[in-house]
Amino acid sequence: VRLGRDESWALLGGGGHGVLATVHAERGVDAVPVVFAVDGGRILLPVDTVKAKATTRLQRLVNLEHDPRCVLLVDRYDDDWSRLWWVRVHATATVVEAGHPALTRFPRYREEGAVVATIVLDPAAVTGWRAS
Amino acid sequence: VRLGRDESWALLGGGGHGVLATVHAERGVDAVPVVFAVDGGRILLPVDTVKAKATTRLQRLVNLEHDPRCVLLVDRYDDDWSRLWWVRVHATATVVEAGHPALTRFPRYREEGAVVATIVLDPAAVTGWRAS
Repeated sequence: VRLGRDESWALLGGGGHGVLATVHAERGVDAVPVVFAVDGGRILLPVDTVKAKATTRLQRLVNLEHDPRCVLLVDRYDDDWSRLWWVRVHATATVVEAGHPALTRFPRYREEGAVVATIVLDPAAVTGWRAS
Repeated sequence: VRLGRDESWALLGGGGHGVLATVHAERGVDAVPVVFAVDGGRILLPVDTVKAKATTRLQRLVNLEHDPRCVLLVDRYDDDWSRLWWVRVHATATVVEAGHPALTRFPRYREEGAVVATIVLDPAAVTGWRAS
């Protein structure tokens, strides 16, 4: 069952977790798990210092600088396939060198310095599907 | 913590669910949830008639015909971020117009005609990460 724009946004809710796919200059595509918050019609992804990584110069930032087009996919898996759903957001990304209040929905982001930048997605298309 | 090849394959196990990212000729990237099985060093994604959709001429097949490079991302989310992990497979895809025995790990695929084709991923790189 195809979902309309309103139902898709309802499933995104105020935020959650999903997968961000970006264009990689040599390898074609890249994908990485992300958490996100929703603020008005925009989707906010943190660049954080909480989840251990080697650098905050993340490949996703390199990719988005090269090509700002991206997809956020949010899906619910269930062994009962009648309960599956997903929402896909095609968007253009901008990077802001600051956190965003909406990201404090995640408790770990309430710590000082936890979020060093925000990837702001401006949705071009929001579509979805549910099994029943 | 970066994961080596062996630990990454161990997390993929015999199969499960993930997100397939492909190159879209106009929109840059696409992403769609998938289930997969593992057979030897290859990863198998079904084109099925089980999960209701408008057509089996899926956009993922159009994309892969245009550019066979893709990424399968498998991740485990948990509100306790010390339990996060993900595995990412960069691969080249080939489409075979038949099912595959390994896909019968999913009970619904044991039905006659449930799988009409298989997307076979030849991994070029398998990497992973876990929080702790």
